[in-house]
Amino acid sequence: MRVLGVDPGLTRCGIGVVDGGTGRSVSCVAVDVVRTPVDATLANRLMAVADAVEDWLDRYRPEAVAIERVFSQHNVRTAMGTAQAGGVVALAAARRGLPVAFHTPSEMKAAVTGSGRADKAQVTAMVTRLLKLENAPKPADAADALGLAICHLWREPMRLRLAEAEARAKELATAHKARLAKAAKAAKAAKSADRNTGVRR
Amino acid sequence: MRVLGVDPGLTRCGIGVVDGGTGRSVSCVAVDVVRTPVDATLANRLMAVADAVEDWLDRYRPEAVAIERVFSQHNVRTAMGTAQAGGVVALAAARRGLPVAFHTPSEMKAAVTGSGRADKAQVTAMVTRLLKLENAPKPADAADALGLAICHLWREPMRLRLAEAEARAKELATAHKARLAKAAKAAKAAKSADRNTGVRR
Repeated sequence: MRVLGVDPGLTRCGIGVVDGGTGRSVSCVAVDVVRTPVDATLANRLMAVADAVEDWLDRYRPEAVAIERVFSQHNVRTAMGTAQAGGVVALAAARRGLPVAFHTPSEMKAAVTGSGRADKAQVTAMVTRLLKLENAPKPADAADALGLAICHLWREPMRLRLAEAEARAKELATAHKARLAKAAKAAKAAKSADRNTGVRR
Repeated sequence: MRVLGVDPGLTRCGIGVVDGGTGRSVSCVAVDVVRTPVDATLANRLMAVADAVEDWLDRYRPEAVAIERVFSQHNVRTAMGTAQAGGVVALAAARRGLPVAFHTPSEMKAAVTGSGRADKAQVTAMVTRLLKLENAPKPADAADALGLAICHLWREPMRLRLAEAEARAKELATAHKARLAKAAKAAKAAKSADRNTGVRR
Protein backbone atom coordinates (compact mmCIF):
# COMPACT_ATOMS: atom_id res chain seq x y z
CA MET A 1 0.00 0.00 0.00
CA ARG A 2 1.18 3.51 -0.81
CA VAL A 3 0.36 6.35 1.57
CA LEU A 4 0.72 10.12 1.23
CA GLY A 5 1.50 11.73 4.58
CA VAL A 6 0.92 15.44 5.13
CA ASP A 7 2.01 17.64 8.01
CA PRO A 8 -0.24 20.57 7.13
CA GLY A 9 0.88 24.17 7.34
CA LEU A 10 0.92 27.41 5.40
CA THR A 11 4.52 28.48 5.94
CA ARG A 12 5.87 24.93 5.67
CA CYS A 13 3.73 21.95 4.68
CA GLY A 14 5.54 18.61 4.94
CA ILE A 15 4.57 16.07 2.31
CA GLY A 16 5.88 12.53 1.85
CA VAL A 17 5.00 9.28 0.10
CA VAL A 18 5.80 5.91 1.68
CA ASP A 19 5.28 2.40 0.34
CA GLY A 20 4.50 -0.33 2.82
CA GLY A 21 5.83 -3.82 2.10
CA THR A 22 5.34 -7.09 3.94
CA GLY A 23 5.43 -6.92 7.73
CA ARG A 24 6.71 -3.58 8.90
CA SER A 25 9.01 -2.83 5.98
CA VAL A 26 8.58 0.66 4.56
CA SER A 27 10.32 2.63 1.83
CA CYS A 28 10.37 6.30 0.94
CA VAL A 29 9.08 7.25 -2.51
CA ALA A 30 9.33 11.04 -2.24
CA VAL A 31 9.47 13.78 0.34
CA ASP A 32 9.38 17.56 0.20
CA VAL A 33 8.21 20.68 1.93
CA VAL A 34 5.71 23.03 0.31
CA ARG A 35 6.20 26.66 1.26
CA THR A 36 3.75 29.46 0.58
CA PRO A 37 4.64 33.16 0.66
CA VAL A 38 3.88 34.84 4.00
CA ASP A 39 2.67 37.99 2.25
CA ALA A 40 0.11 36.17 0.06
CA THR A 41 -3.56 36.15 1.06
CA LEU A 42 -4.76 33.24 3.18
CA ALA A 43 -6.97 32.01 0.31
CA ASN A 44 -4.04 32.03 -2.11
CA ARG A 45 -1.79 30.24 0.38
CA LEU A 46 -4.46 27.54 0.80
CA MET A 47 -4.68 27.26 -2.97
CA ALA A 48 -0.90 26.82 -3.24
CA VAL A 49 -1.04 23.97 -0.68
CA ALA A 50 -4.02 22.39 -2.47
CA ASP A 51 -2.28 22.66 -5.87
CA ALA A 52 0.88 21.00 -4.55
CA VAL A 53 -1.11 18.15 -3.00
CA GLU A 54 -3.15 17.64 -6.20
CA ASP A 55 0.12 17.49 -8.10
CA TRP A 56 1.52 14.83 -5.73
CA LEU A 57 -1.71 12.81 -5.89
CA ASP A 58 -1.43 12.81 -9.70
CA ARG A 59 2.24 11.99 -9.72
CA TYR A 60 2.47 9.31 -7.02
CA ARG A 61 -1.09 7.88 -6.97
CA PRO A 62 -1.24 6.94 -3.26
CA GLU A 63 -4.06 4.66 -2.05
CA ALA A 64 -4.64 6.60 1.17
CA VAL A 65 -3.86 9.99 2.68
CA ALA A 66 -2.77 10.50 6.30
CA ILE A 67 -2.96 14.01 7.76
CA GLU A 68 -1.75 15.29 11.11
CA ARG A 69 -4.67 16.13 13.35
CA VAL A 70 -4.23 19.63 14.71
CA PHE A 71 -4.91 20.34 18.33
CA SER A 72 -4.77 23.72 20.01
CA GLN A 73 -1.37 25.31 19.63
CA HIS A 74 0.14 28.25 21.47
CA ASN A 75 -0.77 30.53 18.62
CA VAL A 76 -4.47 30.34 17.75
CA ARG A 77 -3.99 32.05 14.40
CA THR A 78 -1.32 29.50 13.40
CA ALA A 79 -3.48 26.60 14.59
CA MET A 80 -6.38 27.85 12.48
CA GLY A 81 -4.19 28.24 9.39
CA THR A 82 -2.86 24.73 9.95
CA ALA A 83 -6.38 23.34 10.34
CA GLN A 84 -7.49 25.12 7.15
CA ALA A 85 -4.51 23.70 5.26
CA GLY A 86 -5.40 20.23 6.57
CA GLY A 87 -8.96 20.81 5.39
CA VAL A 88 -7.99 21.53 1.78
CA VAL A 89 -5.67 18.48 1.77
CA ALA A 90 -8.53 16.25 3.02
CA LEU A 91 -10.81 17.75 0.36
CA ALA A 92 -8.33 16.99 -2.44
CA ALA A 93 -8.16 13.35 -1.29
CA ALA A 94 -11.94 13.03 -0.85
CA ARG A 95 -12.52 14.44 -4.36
CA ARG A 96 -10.52 11.47 -5.70
CA GLY A 97 -12.34 8.98 -3.50
CA LEU A 98 -9.23 8.25 -1.45
CA PRO A 99 -9.61 7.30 2.21
CA VAL A 100 -8.37 10.03 4.55
CA ALA A 101 -7.20 9.45 8.11
CA PHE A 102 -6.18 11.97 10.74
CA HIS A 103 -3.54 10.94 13.24
CA THR A 104 -2.49 13.00 16.25
CA PRO A 105 1.18 13.96 16.68
CA SER A 106 1.46 11.56 19.64
CA GLU A 107 -0.05 8.66 17.67
CA MET A 108 2.57 9.28 14.97
CA LYS A 109 5.40 9.58 17.49
CA ALA A 110 4.29 6.44 19.32
CA ALA A 111 4.10 4.49 16.05
CA VAL A 112 7.50 5.63 14.82
CA THR A 113 9.60 5.89 18.01
CA GLY A 114 7.62 3.87 20.57
CA SER A 115 6.96 6.98 22.66
CA GLY A 116 4.13 9.50 22.15
CA ARG A 117 6.36 12.15 23.73
CA ALA A 118 9.40 11.79 21.49
CA ASP A 119 10.98 15.07 20.38
CA LYS A 120 11.57 16.21 16.81
CA ALA A 121 15.15 14.89 16.71
CA GLN A 122 14.03 11.41 17.81
CA VAL A 123 11.25 11.33 15.20
CA THR A 124 13.66 12.42 12.46
CA ALA A 125 16.26 9.84 13.55
CA MET A 126 13.75 6.95 13.60
CA VAL A 127 12.15 7.97 10.29
CA THR A 128 15.61 8.11 8.70
CA ARG A 129 16.48 4.66 10.08
CA LEU A 130 13.13 3.00 9.27
CA LEU A 131 13.22 4.24 5.68
CA LYS A 132 16.98 3.56 5.35
CA LEU A 133 17.58 7.10 4.09
CA GLU A 134 21.12 8.30 3.43
CA ASN A 135 20.34 11.77 4.76
CA ALA A 136 17.88 12.82 7.43
CA PRO A 137 14.83 14.52 5.88
CA LYS A 138 14.83 18.24 6.65
CA PRO A 139 13.13 20.33 7.97
CA ALA A 140 11.22 18.50 10.73
CA ASP A 141 7.96 18.95 8.78
CA ALA A 142 9.29 16.65 6.05
CA ALA A 143 10.21 13.97 8.61
CA ASP A 144 6.79 14.37 10.25
CA ALA A 145 5.03 13.82 6.92
CA LEU A 146 6.95 10.57 6.38
CA GLY A 147 6.26 9.59 10.01
CA LEU A 148 2.52 10.11 9.44
CA ALA A 149 2.56 7.87 6.38
CA ILE A 150 4.42 5.14 8.33
CA CYS A 151 2.02 5.57 11.26
CA HIS A 152 -0.90 5.09 8.89
CA LEU A 153 0.61 2.00 7.25
CA TRP A 154 1.15 0.36 10.64
CA ARG A 155 -1.99 1.50 12.42
CA GLU A 156 -4.54 1.07 9.65
CA PRO A 157 -4.58 -2.78 9.49
CA MET A 158 -4.95 -2.80 13.28
CA ARG A 159 -7.75 -0.25 13.14
CA LEU A 160 -9.56 -2.21 10.43
CA ARG A 161 -9.27 -5.46 12.42
CA LEU A 162 -10.59 -3.68 15.49
CA ALA A 163 -13.50 -2.21 13.52
CA GLU A 164 -14.26 -5.68 12.12
CA ALA A 165 -14.16 -7.24 15.57
CA GLU A 166 -16.46 -4.52 16.90
CA ALA A 167 -18.91 -5.01 14.04
CA ARG A 168 -18.85 -8.79 14.64
CA ALA A 169 -19.44 -8.29 18.38
CA LYS A 170 -22.37 -6.00 17.64
CA GLU A 171 -23.81 -8.58 15.25
CA LEU A 172 -23.52 -11.31 17.87
CA ALA A 173 -25.11 -9.10 20.53
CA THR A 174 -28.01 -8.32 18.19
CA ALA A 175 -28.51 -12.01 17.38
CA HIS A 176 -28.35 -12.88 21.09
CA LYS A 177 -30.94 -10.24 21.98
CA ALA A 178 -33.18 -11.50 19.18
CA ARG A 179 -32.90 -15.07 20.53
CA LEU A 180 -33.74 -13.87 24.06
CA ALA A 181 -36.79 -11.95 22.79
CA LYS A 182 -37.95 -15.00 20.83
CA ALA A 183 -37.57 -17.24 23.88
CA ALA A 184 -39.47 -14.79 26.08
CA LYS A 185 -42.26 -14.63 23.52
CA ALA A 186 -42.41 -18.43 23.30
CA ALA A 187 -42.53 -18.70 27.12
CA LYS A 188 -45.36 -16.17 27.26
CA ALA A 189 -47.29 -18.00 24.53
CA ALA A 190 -46.81 -21.32 26.36
CA LYS A 191 -48.03 -19.78 29.62
CA SER A 192 -51.10 -18.33 27.95
CA ALA A 193 -51.80 -21.71 26.25
CA ASP A 194 -51.49 -23.45 29.66
CA ARG A 195 -53.92 -20.99 31.19
CA ASN A 196 -56.42 -21.64 28.40
CA THR A 197 -56.21 -25.38 28.84
CA GLY A 198 -56.26 -25.08 32.64
CA VAL A 199 -52.83 -26.62 33.12
CA ARG A 200 -51.01 -25.45 36.26
CA ARG A 201 -47.25 -25.34 36.49
CA MET B 1 -21.57 44.44 -5.63
CA ARG B 2 -22.74 40.92 -4.78
CA VAL B 3 -21.19 39.12 -1.80
CA LEU B 4 -21.47 35.50 -0.66
CA GLY B 5 -21.28 35.28 3.12
CA VAL B 6 -20.42 31.99 4.82
CA ASP B 7 -20.63 31.04 8.48
CA PRO B 8 -18.52 27.88 8.18
CA GLY B 9 -19.39 24.66 9.97
CA LEU B 10 -19.76 20.94 9.41
CA THR B 11 -23.04 20.33 11.22
CA ARG B 12 -24.59 23.60 10.03
CA CYS B 13 -22.92 25.91 7.52
CA GLY B 14 -24.75 29.21 7.00
CA ILE B 15 -24.62 30.56 3.46
CA GLY B 16 -26.15 33.77 2.09
CA VAL B 17 -25.93 36.10 -0.88
CA VAL B 18 -26.44 39.85 -0.49
CA ASP B 19 -26.47 42.60 -3.11
CA GLY B 20 -25.18 46.00 -2.08
CA GLY B 21 -26.82 49.05 -3.65
CA THR B 22 -26.03 52.74 -3.31
CA GLY B 23 -25.10 53.95 0.16
CA ARG B 24 -25.91 51.36 2.76
CA SER B 25 -28.85 49.71 1.00
CA VAL B 26 -28.63 45.93 0.89
CA SER B 27 -30.91 43.20 -0.39
CA CYS B 28 -31.04 39.46 0.16
CA VAL B 29 -30.63 37.25 -2.92
CA ALA B 30 -30.63 33.85 -1.23
CA VAL B 31 -29.97 32.24 2.12
CA ASP B 32 -29.75 28.67 3.33
CA VAL B 33 -28.01 26.32 5.72
CA VAL B 34 -25.91 23.42 4.49
CA ARG B 35 -25.97 20.40 6.79
CA THR B 36 -23.64 17.43 6.58
CA PRO B 37 -24.28 14.04 8.23
CA VAL B 38 -22.62 13.66 11.63
CA ASP B 39 -21.73 10.03 10.89
CA ALA B 40 -19.92 10.81 7.61
CA THR B 41 -16.12 11.02 7.56
CA LEU B 42 -14.55 14.42 8.10
CA ALA B 43 -13.21 14.43 4.52
CA ASN B 44 -16.66 13.67 3.10
CA ARG B 45 -18.28 16.35 5.26
CA LEU B 46 -15.73 18.89 3.98
CA MET B 47 -16.49 17.77 0.44
CA ALA B 48 -20.24 18.26 1.01
CA VAL B 49 -19.59 21.84 2.22
CA ALA B 50 -17.24 22.51 -0.73
CA ASP B 51 -19.78 21.11 -3.23
CA ALA B 52 -22.56 23.28 -1.84
CA VAL B 53 -20.40 26.42 -2.00
CA GLU B 54 -19.26 25.62 -5.57
CA ASP B 55 -22.92 25.23 -6.49
CA TRP B 56 -23.80 28.63 -4.98
CA LEU B 57 -20.81 30.31 -6.67
CA ASP B 58 -22.06 28.93 -10.02
CA ARG B 59 -25.66 29.86 -9.39
CA TYR B 60 -25.32 33.36 -7.90
CA ARG B 61 -21.93 34.52 -9.28
CA PRO B 62 -20.87 36.73 -6.35
CA GLU B 63 -17.95 39.15 -6.81
CA ALA B 64 -16.46 38.48 -3.37
CA VAL B 65 -16.68 35.92 -0.58
CA ALA B 66 -16.78 36.83 3.13
CA ILE B 67 -16.05 34.08 5.66
CA GLU B 68 -16.30 34.18 9.43
CA ARG B 69 -12.86 34.05 10.99
CA VAL B 70 -12.78 31.31 13.61
CA PHE B 71 -11.15 31.94 16.94
CA SER B 72 -10.68 29.40 19.69
CA GLN B 73 -13.98 27.99 20.83
CA HIS B 74 -14.83 25.98 23.94
CA ASN B 75 -14.58 22.77 21.98
CA VAL B 76 -11.24 22.44 20.18
CA ARG B 77 -12.50 19.66 17.92
CA THR B 78 -15.45 21.79 16.79
CA ALA B 79 -13.20 24.82 16.24
CA MET B 80 -10.87 22.75 14.05
CA GLY B 81 -13.78 21.36 11.99
CA THR B 82 -15.07 24.90 11.56
CA ALA B 83 -11.64 26.16 10.49
CA GLN B 84 -11.31 23.31 8.01
CA ALA B 85 -14.74 24.07 6.55
CA GLY B 86 -13.71 27.75 6.24
CA GLY B 87 -10.55 26.61 4.48
CA VAL B 88 -12.37 24.67 1.77
CA VAL B 89 -14.76 27.61 1.23
CA ALA B 90 -11.79 29.99 0.80
CA LEU B 91 -10.19 27.53 -1.61
CA ALA B 92 -13.34 27.33 -3.76
CA ALA B 93 -13.39 31.13 -4.02
CA ALA B 94 -9.64 31.42 -4.71
CA ARG B 95 -9.90 28.81 -7.48
CA ARG B 96 -12.32 31.17 -9.25
CA GLY B 97 -10.11 34.19 -8.66
CA LEU B 98 -12.64 35.77 -6.29
CA PRO B 99 -11.38 37.96 -3.45
CA VAL B 100 -11.85 36.34 -0.04
CA ALA B 101 -12.08 38.24 3.23
CA PHE B 102 -12.26 36.88 6.76
CA HIS B 103 -14.24 38.89 9.31
CA THR B 104 -14.37 38.12 13.02
CA PRO B 105 -17.75 37.57 14.69
CA SER B 106 -17.37 40.88 16.55
CA GLU B 107 -16.57 42.79 13.34
CA MET B 108 -19.74 41.37 11.83
CA LYS B 109 -21.84 42.15 14.91
CA ALA B 110 -20.42 45.68 15.11
CA ALA B 111 -21.18 46.30 11.44
CA VAL B 112 -24.73 44.99 11.61
CA THR B 113 -25.92 46.01 15.10
CA GLY B 114 -23.44 48.70 16.14
CA SER B 115 -22.14 46.53 18.98
CA GLY B 116 -19.43 43.88 18.72
CA ARG B 117 -21.01 42.09 21.67
CA ALA B 118 -24.56 41.77 20.31
CA ASP B 119 -26.22 38.39 20.91
CA LYS B 120 -27.63 36.06 18.28
CA ALA B 121 -31.19 37.44 18.63
CA GLN B 122 -30.00 41.02 18.07
CA VAL B 123 -27.98 40.01 14.99
CA THR B 124 -30.96 38.12 13.55
CA ALA B 125 -33.32 41.05 14.25
CA MET B 126 -31.01 43.61 12.60
CA VAL B 127 -30.27 41.40 9.59
CA THR B 128 -34.02 40.86 9.11
CA ARG B 129 -34.65 44.62 9.30
CA LEU B 130 -31.70 45.70 7.12
CA LEU B 131 -32.65 43.23 4.37
CA LYS B 132 -36.40 43.95 4.79
CA LEU B 133 -37.14 40.24 5.11
CA GLU B 134 -40.67 39.06 5.89
CA ASN B 135 -39.41 36.26 8.11
CA ALA B 136 -36.30 36.13 10.26
CA PRO B 137 -33.68 33.83 8.71
CA LYS B 138 -33.30 30.64 10.76
CA PRO B 139 -31.23 29.09 12.27
CA ALA B 140 -28.76 31.70 13.59
CA ASP B 141 -26.08 30.41 11.18
CA ALA B 142 -28.20 31.63 8.23
CA ALA B 143 -28.56 35.10 9.77
CA ASP B 144 -24.81 35.16 10.52
CA ALA B 145 -23.99 34.36 6.89
CA LEU B 146 -26.13 37.29 5.71
CA GLY B 147 -24.57 39.47 8.43
CA LEU B 148 -21.09 38.60 7.16
CA ALA B 149 -22.02 39.56 3.60
CA ILE B 150 -23.44 42.89 4.83
CA CYS B 151 -20.36 43.45 6.99
CA HIS B 152 -18.17 42.89 3.96
CA LEU B 153 -20.19 45.24 1.75
CA TRP B 154 -19.90 48.03 4.31
CA ARG B 155 -16.36 47.46 5.53
CA GLU B 156 -14.63 46.70 2.24
CA PRO B 157 -14.76 50.20 0.70
CA MET B 158 -13.42 51.58 3.99
CA ARG B 159 -10.65 48.98 4.07
CA LEU B 160 -9.69 49.71 0.47
CA ARG B 161 -9.56 53.47 1.14
CA LEU B 162 -7.40 52.81 4.19
CA ALA B 163 -5.07 50.54 2.21
CA GLU B 164 -4.84 53.19 -0.50
CA ALA B 165 -4.03 55.90 2.04
CA GLU B 166 -1.39 53.68 3.61
CA ALA B 167 0.17 52.93 0.23
CA ARG B 168 0.18 56.66 -0.60
CA ALA B 169 1.80 57.51 2.75
CA LYS B 170 4.47 54.87 2.15
CA GLU B 171 5.11 56.27 -1.33
CA LEU B 172 5.50 59.80 0.08
CA ALA B 173 7.85 58.57 2.81
CA THR B 174 9.98 56.75 0.24
CA ALA B 175 10.12 59.84 -2.00
CA HIS B 176 11.02 62.00 1.01
CA LYS B 177 13.84 59.65 2.04
CA ALA B 178 15.13 59.60 -1.54
CA ARG B 179 15.17 63.43 -1.60
CA LEU B 180 17.05 63.52 1.71
CA ALA B 181 19.62 61.01 0.44
CA LYS B 182 20.06 63.00 -2.78
CA ALA B 183 20.57 66.24 -0.83
CA ALA B 184 23.12 64.58 1.47
CA LYS B 185 24.99 63.23 -1.54
CA ALA B 186 24.97 66.64 -3.24
CA ALA B 187 26.26 68.30 -0.05
CA LYS B 188 29.06 65.76 0.21
CA ALA B 189 29.99 66.22 -3.45
CA ALA B 190 30.04 70.03 -3.04
CA LYS B 191 32.26 69.73 0.04
CA SER B 192 34.68 67.45 -1.79
CA ALA B 193 34.75 69.84 -4.81
CA ASP B 194 35.44 72.76 -2.46
CA ARG B 195 38.33 70.86 -0.91
CA ASN B 196 39.81 70.13 -4.34
CA THR B 197 39.65 73.77 -5.43
CA GLY B 198 40.90 74.99 -2.06
CA VAL B 199 37.73 76.94 -1.24
CA ARG B 200 36.99 77.19 2.46
CA ARG B 201 33.51 77.52 3.80
